[in-house]
Amino acid sequence: MLIGQAGGATAVINASLVGAVREALAADAVDGIYGARHGIEGVLARDLLDLRGESAATWQGLLTTPSAALGSSRYKLQPDDPERALAALRELQVRFLLYIGGNDSADTAHRIHRAAQATDYDLRVICVPKTIDNDLPDTDHCPGYGSAARFIALATMDSALCTEAIPTHYPVKIIEVMGRDAGWLAAAAALGKTREADAPHLIYVPERPFARARFLADVQEAYRAFGWVVVVVAETVRDEAGVPLGAIGQQGVDAFGHPLLGGAAQTLVGLVRDELGVRARFDRPGDLQRMSSACVSTADREEAYLVGRAAVRAALQGETDKMVTLVRAPDAAYACTTGLADLERVANGQRLLPDVYLNAAGTGISPAFRDYALPLIGDPLPQHARLLGVPLPRA
Amino acid sequence: MLIGQAGGATAVINASLVGAVREALAADAVDGIYGARHGIEGVLARDLLDLRGESAATWQGLLTTPSAALGSSRYKLQPDDPERALAALRELQVRFLLYIGGNDSADTAHRIHRAAQATDYDLRVICVPKTIDNDLPDTDHCPGYGSAARFIALATMDSALCTEAIPTHYPVKIIEVMGRDAGWLAAAAALGKTREADAPHLIYVPERPFARARFLADVQEAYRAFGWVVVVVAETVRDEAGVPLGAIGQQGVDAFGHPLLGGAAQTLVGLVRDELGVRARFDRPGDLQRMSSACVSTADREEAYLVGRAAVRAALQGETDKMVTLVRAPDAAYACTTGLADLERVANGQRLLPDVYLNAAGTGISPAFRDYALPLIGDPLPQHARLLGVPLPRA
Repeated sequence: MLIGQAGGATAVINASLVGAVREALAADAVDGIYGARHGIEGVLARDLLDLRGESAATWQGLLTTPSAALGSSRYKLQPDDPERALAALRELQVRFLLYIGGNDSADTAHRIHRAAQATDYDLRVICVPKTIDNDLPDTDHCPGYGSAARFIALATMDSALCTEAIPTHYPVKIIEVMGRDAGWLAAAAALGKTREADAPHLIYVPERPFARARFLADVQEAYRAFGWVVVVVAETVRDEAGVPLGAIGQQGVDAFGHPLLGGAAQTLVGLVRDELGVRARFDRPGDLQRMSSACVSTADREEAYLVGRAAVRAALQGETDKMVTLVRAPDAAYACTTGLADLERVANGQRLLPDVYLNAAGTGISPAFRDYALPLIGDPLPQHARLLGVPLPRA
Repeated sequence: MLIGQAGGATAVINASLVGAVREALAADAVDGIYGARHGIEGVLARDLLDLRGESAATWQGLLTTPSAALGSSRYKLQPDDPERALAALRELQVRFLLYIGGNDSADTAHRIHRAAQATDYDLRVICVPKTIDNDLPDTDHCPGYGSAARFIALATMDSALCTEAIPTHYPVKIIEVMGRDAGWLAAAAALGKTREADAPHLIYVPERPFARARFLADVQEAYRAFGWVVVVVAETVRDEAGVPLGAIGQQGVDAFGHPLLGGAAQTLVGLVRDELGVRARFDRPGDLQRMSSACVSTADREEAYLVGRAAVRAALQGETDKMVTLVRAPDAAYACTTGLADLERVANGQRLLPDVYLNAAGTGISPAFRDYALPLIGDPLPQHARLLGVPLPRA
């Protein structure tokens, strides 16, 4: 069995690796467990590890260590790479290929499966889902998302308290989040919101084109209502012409003559300052939102481990060209089992945030989204206390 | 007694409020406990709360709630404000003024003390230290710093794992941190570093002027050595001419004709890209670093509570025009007691990071800084596991 990790790392992708390795260690049919350094790149370059040489303590430690311990990869297969990879796998007598990743990884794995099929080499190829973007089709959700969602929900609650405490300083805060073309992570920012006055007041997701005038009117309205505003924006939001927010209003060049590119948050800070005359600042947690060991969702970690184990079992049972999925039980109490989806569908599909998970204006979440996402972020979010605020009678 | 909170919020400033209120509730000499909304602004505007009207459960909840529950302030006193504030305090028969904040708050409190002295009004003015910047003089450290330092140390460990996992994607990561004119927070980024190869590889503090050529050489060298580089930069770093990094190389204007201002991290990303031809990206946790409820240092929270209580006791004992300080016991085991410093010294002083806490190059920390800072961040940092990495013998 050969295992690889690919795509952007997450806080729980190692839990999937540990689940897979432990299941493989217990399987009689597996007499070697190899790890590819940097995914398919390690296969092509024969940069491989003998995972049986690792201690039980290491696997236990990796369960709670963010990122991809094998090293990850964003390498796009070149035309003859599937055959080259297959040649390496044959040479190593690899019969089971496990690939932990997202859409691109499913595409890589599917192409290697087809190369094996074309030459009648008995190879079982199973993918393990992983992405903070939560945009893989055919699965209820993706391991990695719950922890990133928990981080974003908590970051929004915490950072907003700072804006609320001194609204005269910087009344508007923009928080820039990831999510590729999907608004799943941006929507998660509202999971700690319990009152209308709570942050975030406005959420901008990539599924909706950004309209500048509407944005300014929205911010103005929230500012009048609450005296301070927290806006969450996905870094990939585009305007009606398809121009990314980070490119709007950045017509300058730097000292070296290169065009200046801001981020989405910076563009919104500029808009608020220039058009509304209100001071704004931004938080951009960046990679920390995918990696925070302090904000891991216990549910997410358990499911990441579960899908790793399920992938090995599926391979041993003769399945191939599949990705393990999470299937939510229809009952009221949250529980997930695993299923299987075709790699080709996963490779070519993308699940965006459905309209039903947003409010009518598209700048907030619906109760249905709360029901969907709250179980994924693990333990209940902390409840921040507030003073009742009993006014002192004036003399 | 009247209590106010001022300056940038922290994750533990409410713990100081709770410590003060609980001590005051137990004191016979205090028959009213008022809270000023937004610090001195609430005093001037008579926007005051009766804190005896709050429940014990609220105080318990606020112990672990970040930010300033009373609302904070960055208002600079106008010439006749001390007398106006004093008139309000007289009218309310306030005899004890507690002000939780940093240098500016010490200045505000000191001026009110002088106004009281000038009119022979018996007012005892005590400040409670608070700042993530850790730059107040005459105290071993400042409540708020330990938690922000823990956040930055952990964020650097976690986010760096992501860069290390795919060094071919974005080999260089810049993490922008706060700290005003002092490098205490930037230095804290290295508290989780145990090996030379660990992040951060380079730290740039405001105490040292930034030299572009040296920076590029440093990054190049680390890139050659490790294949990836994590740089931590204080947002306030300036070049040899005193120009803030965020203004370097940003000569353009935006769509509205306003000059473009980047941040320090963005400037470094541009430098690395343009001068070294290496892809770089940045994390800018922003206000989250001062507010993260998930990364609070238990030591920091306990000390914030301690200085709140100590302030009330000092006021009751007749002290005035003082700030409570933390005094580290000279023994090997970490412990702090409290002391008192003159407000005027605090108002006009600033404690920068001493040279002895940096390495010779000024881009890393010394063992002395580790000894100083590790006890402040509370529980030991998590130990991230790594594979031993047993290479598979080539066929």
